[in-house]
Amino acid sequence: MKPRIGIIPGDPGGIGPELIAKLLSDPEVAEKADILLIGDRHLFELGQRQAGQDIEMTDCNARQDEWASLSGFALHHRDTITPEEVRLAEVTYANGHSALDNLNCALEMARDGVIDAITFGPFNKAALIEAGLGHEDELHYMAEFLGVETYISELNTLNGIWTSRVSSHIALKDVSSFITEHRITEAVHLIDRTLRRSGLARPRLSVAALNPHAGDNGNFGMEEIEVINPTVETLRQKQVNVDGPWPSDTVFLKAKAGDVDGIITMYHDQGQIALKLMGFDRGVTVQGGIPFPVTTPAHGTAFDIAGQGTADVGATRAAFDIACDMVSHWEAVA
Amino acid sequence: MKPRIGIIPGDPGGIGPELIAKLLSDPEVAEKADILLIGDRHLFELGQRQAGQDIEMTDCNARQDEWASLSGFALHHRDTITPEEVRLAEVTYANGHSALDNLNCALEMARDGVIDAITFGPFNKAALIEAGLGHEDELHYMAEFLGVETYISELNTLNGIWTSRVSSHIALKDVSSFITEHRITEAVHLIDRTLRRSGLARPRLSVAALNPHAGDNGNFGMEEIEVINPTVETLRQKQVNVDGPWPSDTVFLKAKAGDVDGIITMYHDQGQIALKLMGFDRGVTVQGGIPFPVTTPAHGTAFDIAGQGTADVGATRAAFDIACDMVSHWEAVA
Repeated sequence: MKPRIGIIPGDPGGIGPELIAKLLSDPEVAEKADILLIGDRHLFELGQRQAGQDIEMTDCNARQDEWASLSGFALHHRDTITPEEVRLAEVTYANGHSALDNLNCALEMARDGVIDAITFGPFNKAALIEAGLGHEDELHYMAEFLGVETYISELNTLNGIWTSRVSSHIALKDVSSFITEHRITEAVHLIDRTLRRSGLARPRLSVAALNPHAGDNGNFGMEEIEVINPTVETLRQKQVNVDGPWPSDTVFLKAKAGDVDGIITMYHDQGQIALKLMGFDRGVTVQGGIPFPVTTPAHGTAFDIAGQGTADVGATRAAFDIACDMVSHWEAVA
Repeated sequence: MKPRIGIIPGDPGGIGPELIAKLLSDPEVAEKADILLIGDRHLFELGQRQAGQDIEMTDCNARQDEWASLSGFALHHRDTITPEEVRLAEVTYANGHSALDNLNCALEMARDGVIDAITFGPFNKAALIEAGLGHEDELHYMAEFLGVETYISELNTLNGIWTSRVSSHIALKDVSSFITEHRITEAVHLIDRTLRRSGLARPRLSVAALNPHAGDNGNFGMEEIEVINPTVETLRQKQVNVDGPWPSDTVFLKAKAGDVDGIITMYHDQGQIALKLMGFDRGVTVQGGIPFPVTTPAHGTAFDIAGQGTADVGATRAAFDIACDMVSHWEAVA
């Protein structure tokens, strides 16, 4: 059975609609998955005009109809924004509301088993906040929406290198207080499980240190000695394939050389500096800890090129492929 | 007049002696500068055997003799370690003592105007500490040795991209307390001056943010709003060519694209993750704030390949070239 992937356009004013149109125009995509477009018909059509595509979409009610076998792409049409309200390359309440509203519908459908996974076009954080996000990021919003109370972490991946985070969207001065045995353990388990669900039988994991030179034997901080080392040791005794802590300015060299599949980072920029340098436009974000796969390109709404038809579909295609892979392995991995 | 460069071998047990031999074997090097080798003759000879070179060295007393016109390379021989005491690929007091002792001599000669600049082979931090470094790094040691009380910061450079640091070898949890108007201003002036001394008339500088997403308008930390932004604004009003703060996961993309010459980083790994990913083996460290140029390859003693003759001389050559460039422009830049 093909994975059933729900696709939403993301922020109407960004490059999301265009990227979705470009994604759908690749015949391989329709072969790999049963796709359900969730959102306003005119947004998908806007993206097609921007991308210079004309793609067949058939309206359906996905909760009642056998949408997977419809002609063209199944469209679960919704009214979240009027065409006149769409503002290209602007942060507006209407844009943010549309993105959130379509996300809510996709989350409910995935929760209810109508679809297996979600891939979404880029959100604009400021627009989401205007529309009432109420959280530091969309991951925390999704977790609350779904009642998830276990560990969540954004995962980022590029060219087969994955990262998870022990802390994320917080002030750097607060990072040290997040470095606990519990959070490190959860971040290791999360990336381990996610990598196995993406198809790796036994992922090779490395933990990044918090301090420069991994603390230099306690000269530049004690977290490695007091928390990170003992936690890694405990995990190894439980047969988790993990090592570290490694100085964060060398651990990505190991990954680049192909010696590591996943890196557990201590804070947001530690992983993002590295991944963005290795390929800004090709990275994928996976919402880790959500009870089904949710993926999106790691780049943003790119207002500077919105509507021009020049956006690169690479990361969106990678996000879609990862969602498909994860669906195939989801049930087999506890 | 040629720049007069003092060269010391660094840690006897690492790849420093081999790298110096490889550096000297390039005829361009002797043409570019008057070179004074400072250290034990047998260490330079050890490096030549490791590198498969045989280089003419003429003993002299550099404080009395006209060493610049001697046949071959001028050698200011010193007795800091016996050949029997040299331990390859080991952290020992004797190795560390030799490295420090030759450094002291070179610092005194540069202070006294016998030489214009110093390039040194890699030190081993642990060996230096055993030998009584008494500081978190060699830069702070040099500053105390020379009585420097103004702002100092390690500068790193790779392929024309430079970084300075507002904080360096400290615990990550202490970084926020180092983010002050004074330190940012000093770090900006230091990299500005150093880049002009390396030959750029008007360096383009960008300041990295401290927090993820540059603080996201205060949602993830207030240092950008309260300290970094106003400091950058004040510097711009004084005609310094600086902008920012930029999110640290994008500012290096600007540099990689050639749009920035120097980045002022808030903490050690922020710059080092990026620079090492862009070219681990080719980076150079400049000891910023010392009253004459002091440069070294950014990589370490590489004990895993010490004595094998396989070390890459690229970063050492770059360190030498930068020392020469800096001597030429030193006096012209206030």
